[in-house]
Amino acid sequence: MAESGHGSYVEPEFERDTTYIEDRITAEAGPWPVEAGRYRLVVARACPWANRAIIVRRLLGLEDAISMGICGPTHDADSWTFDLDPGGLDPVLGIPRIKDAYLARFPDYPKGITVPAVVDVPSGKVVTNDFPRMTIDLSTQWTEHHREGAPVLYPEALRAEIDEVNQRVYTEVNNGVYRCGFAGTQKAYDAAYERLFTALDWLEERLSTQRYLVGDTITEADVRLFTTLARFDAVYHGHFKCNRSKLSEMPVLWAYARDLFQTPGFGDTTDFVHIKSHYYEVHRDINPTGVVPAGPDLSGWATPHGRESLGGRPFGDGTPPGPPPASERVPTAHNPHVGEDGLVTT
Amino acid sequence: MAESGHGSYVEPEFERDTTYIEDRITAEAGPWPVEAGRYRLVVARACPWANRAIIVRRLLGLEDAISMGICGPTHDADSWTFDLDPGGLDPVLGIPRIKDAYLARFPDYPKGITVPAVVDVPSGKVVTNDFPRMTIDLSTQWTEHHREGAPVLYPEALRAEIDEVNQRVYTEVNNGVYRCGFAGTQKAYDAAYERLFTALDWLEERLSTQRYLVGDTITEADVRLFTTLARFDAVYHGHFKCNRSKLSEMPVLWAYARDLFQTPGFGDTTDFVHIKSHYYEVHRDINPTGVVPAGPDLSGWATPHGRESLGGRPFGDGTPPGPPPASERVPTAHNPHVGEDGLVTT
Repeated sequence: MAESGHGSYVEPEFERDTTYIEDRITAEAGPWPVEAGRYRLVVARACPWANRAIIVRRLLGLEDAISMGICGPTHDADSWTFDLDPGGLDPVLGIPRIKDAYLARFPDYPKGITVPAVVDVPSGKVVTNDFPRMTIDLSTQWTEHHREGAPVLYPEALRAEIDEVNQRVYTEVNNGVYRCGFAGTQKAYDAAYERLFTALDWLEERLSTQRYLVGDTITEADVRLFTTLARFDAVYHGHFKCNRSKLSEMPVLWAYARDLFQTPGFGDTTDFVHIKSHYYEVHRDINPTGVVPAGPDLSGWATPHGRESLGGRPFGDGTPPGPPPASERVPTAHNPHVGEDGLVTT
Repeated sequence: MAESGHGSYVEPEFERDTTYIEDRITAEAGPWPVEAGRYRLVVARACPWANRAIIVRRLLGLEDAISMGICGPTHDADSWTFDLDPGGLDPVLGIPRIKDAYLARFPDYPKGITVPAVVDVPSGKVVTNDFPRMTIDLSTQWTEHHREGAPVLYPEALRAEIDEVNQRVYTEVNNGVYRCGFAGTQKAYDAAYERLFTALDWLEERLSTQRYLVGDTITEADVRLFTTLARFDAVYHGHFKCNRSKLSEMPVLWAYARDLFQTPGFGDTTDFVHIKSHYYEVHRDINPTGVVPAGPDLSGWATPHGRESLGGRPFGDGTPPGPPPASERVPTAHNPHVGEDGLVTT
């Protein structure tokens, strides 16, 4: 998550530091070549930006090619830690905190210690934390390792439209909820709220006649919108004051979000306990007690969405992914809709 | 409101100070006799406890017998002030803050400076701030000044049942939302949340087959529940983490609340701007930025509730009150459902 090492996130007007390590892992010759088993994707399930990479890796079936390290939901001023792992050490990298992999790469690394990050396992160095590039590269550079039946999430013919939608979704929605939550003045908040709900109204309209954001299949654009929607009622509505309505009160977006949630790769990567714990416990500057709300009731996520009537081919000419590896399943206690096989049960 | 003069409301486990000035104004001989024009009811529209007295005074038509002073929605460590009045002075009492009337009565008054408070105008002294007693006394002691057609809000035959319901509503709901919001530990919060929603489930069930809480007419019990429900989605759901669901997601309670809201005396005394402003700006210990959310969308309050099908006679053998005096109207800008005459338009 593009936040860490701060004492406070609240600013008069919230602006995200978007300076990342921009190295890329590429199929063609370069310093960081695509190579199965060489890299480790480090994530936190709480984080919407990391959740994108978790979803895409899973949809494409890259679990065997790129392993995954999972940080716990909360962190201190030194950022995300491997507190979920035995002994508090990532079993592959052998480090207690992702910061160590940043410092291995740049001993004086001056910017945010964020997830998702891709680490070069042999050297222990972070290759990239450039999350918007990361998922596109999983789609376009790692093709030789994709599973059979993997969907095309960034189809060439639709890239211009996907990029355009992604840009608006990023500035207005993905980041828009943070702009509301971390606004330090009423004026900045009011403007942020207006921008956010203007964009959600646009999406509500756009998705009323088409099942997915771009084209008739699931693409990168849907992945990026989904991770914000999945956190909306659980966190952004109350904690970030994004409260014109709940997601569950926006009929089209709510049905769209449930459709994706019930699709393998989406809801089964959503850990509501980690999500709520992260935001409410880490952001003490807007929630000083650190108390995590017990709500909302999550039962609605499994209800019929009716979006099939709009047509669409979720995986295009491909197929849905099977259940996740046992070690990567979200516990039912963290998401009541995840069954024993790690898939969402409807 | 039974809170003031604190730097912080958060406690490990929130407990309300329920020690009030217990003097009563009585129809029979006593130190404070019922007398039209002698007393002034001091309120803040934000405060649910004061809102009870505003509603009861209006339902009973006591506007001419007991004048009303209105404090602004926010306050400092010295509690509620008459900042809405020209020059910042209550036009009748001539004081800038209700605290002055408390000190006129008890120069070393050690407890909370709260609204509602009834002030003896000639002496400038607070007579009582015992809010549960206050509304009952408006019903039972001030009968000679009730308007023609005033409802019987505390009918003798139903008092035992009203008292019993009021007790549970008070500890579990009226005060229950505060117990959630000001819990200083996760354990205290979790227990408070459980208690609150257990009680709301009980009310949802009870009100599914009867239009009002006790008997078949509006009583004191409905007034007391209403002022909490009116604040639920606007404040308690997010600010106090009472978020299993919104009120608008509990079908029976939501219809019940709308029914009352659309009844003269209820919605027309509800000032959403003051309500949100008070809680979000005053409780800096749980909302450090003081930013007031722009939501929720309030349009639902005016939608048909369908409760007429349960029968019931809102005012019994009486009649609804007419429009409020011009000086006591809630501005449309503070409640979109209040029309030019000060009544809720449906």
